[in-house]
Amino acid sequence: MHFTSEQRLDDNVLEREFTLGEIPGILWTPASASASAPAPLILLGHPPLGLRRMHPRLVGRALHAAADGFATATIELPGSGDRPRRPAVEQARADMQRAMKADEPVSDEIIDALVLPLVDEAVPEWQAALDALLAMPGIDGPVGYSGGVMSIGIRLAVVEPRISAAVLFAGSLVPRTMFEEARRVTIPLHVLLQWDDEGNDRQTALDLFDAFGSEEKTLNANMGGHTGVPQFAGEAADRFFVRHLK
Amino acid sequence: MHFTSEQRLDDNVLEREFTLGEIPGILWTPASASASAPAPLILLGHPPLGLRRMHPRLVGRALHAAADGFATATIELPGSGDRPRRPAVEQARADMQRAMKADEPVSDEIIDALVLPLVDEAVPEWQAALDALLAMPGIDGPVGYSGGVMSIGIRLAVVEPRISAAVLFAGSLVPRTMFEEARRVTIPLHVLLQWDDEGNDRQTALDLFDAFGSEEKTLNANMGGHTGVPQFAGEAADRFFVRHLK
Repeated sequence: MHFTSEQRLDDNVLEREFTLGEIPGILWTPASASASAPAPLILLGHPPLGLRRMHPRLVGRALHAAADGFATATIELPGSGDRPRRPAVEQARADMQRAMKADEPVSDEIIDALVLPLVDEAVPEWQAALDALLAMPGIDGPVGYSGGVMSIGIRLAVVEPRISAAVLFAGSLVPRTMFEEARRVTIPLHVLLQWDDEGNDRQTALDLFDAFGSEEKTLNANMGGHTGVPQFAGEAADRFFVRHLK
Repeated sequence: MHFTSEQRLDDNVLEREFTLGEIPGILWTPASASASAPAPLILLGHPPLGLRRMHPRLVGRALHAAADGFATATIELPGSGDRPRRPAVEQARADMQRAMKADEPVSDEIIDALVLPLVDEAVPEWQAALDALLAMPGIDGPVGYSGGVMSIGIRLAVVEPRISAAVLFAGSLVPRTMFEEARRVTIPLHVLLQWDDEGNDRQTALDLFDAFGSEEKTLNANMGGHTGVPQFAGEAADRFFVRHLK
């Protein structure tokens, strides 16, 4: 992991861009974190729209988390931002957009082609980032995962034992095989659902919530569309992490 | 309203039993409340099991609310505790228990006969209690309603303009006509749903949540049975009231 830039966002948070091999990433650390009092880490997931475009929203989440004493970090997803596009996934995305425009259901084949390669590629990258981040002084477990592509969160929750709690953001482009993986999730979950999310099938989200194997799981459903998560719902998610990571 | 007993629960909360005509009730006030700094009021709903039996759980809720600066009050429901039974309702309850024992669905007729008279009778009583409570020094609006028989909460939210926010506890014995009333609710709602509530049809609860007309409504669903609401879910409901009543 190589740091490429750093800036203070305010008196209390340091933002550092880094590269992990070819993968760009960002780390935010609260001033309170030190080698003798390391901060627990939250991995910030995001949709595959590129880190640069997601930056303002990620900074908002990082500042909130830092106020609770958490370090946060994120990396660019495969095929997003400046990372090379994958033709098969781009084809699936075009197929999806064509189906949506025609008001047709997005087929399971399209969803699988769009999401499964992303999950397969991204998850080991997030694990590698975790290796590098946890080796730093000032950062330590327990680790949370928050938001972004739901299937990445599910897979990480299943395969990565260092992640001990996750906030997931319900989205409907979930391959059917992820339901099986969901049953194997056992860590505490806090699932945000936007009840009137135009791009999200509500029943799929409810079925997926039902499928999770976790003994502690909360569904927090609120009004409004995909990007309209109310501030109080974000705060409830913050408190979920405080409860489980501190 | 006549006070019949009073005791300090701890240094900070005064519990007073009262009667309002023939109806017994309990009022809890935080020590911080005074005529010049009145406490906002939360009406504590409860299932029709009698105030005496519900007392320990009600006290727990009252202490939490008092810690946030709220006064709380409750009254005995018609046909519960020492109040006279109503033969038609008792018949409906026996019919319901027979159906449940036989693993048959509880018919709409039984639900109507059990719940609608209770709502029709109870709601004006809660409104009368509100008149008396808000006339006291040290208590003032805004007023919240919390928990108990869901249909009573819905009706109160529709007909009582002094109630400005409600925490509702999803239960499935909801007459079909209440769905129409639910559409007319416009105050902020925080709906608790126990995902595996053995006595509650989950789909009915989700349909009812969908029906509420409120612009701000949150569904907070958690694992466990009817009485297993986790502490953190209770705290989230507390914060909902702090957000809307203070």
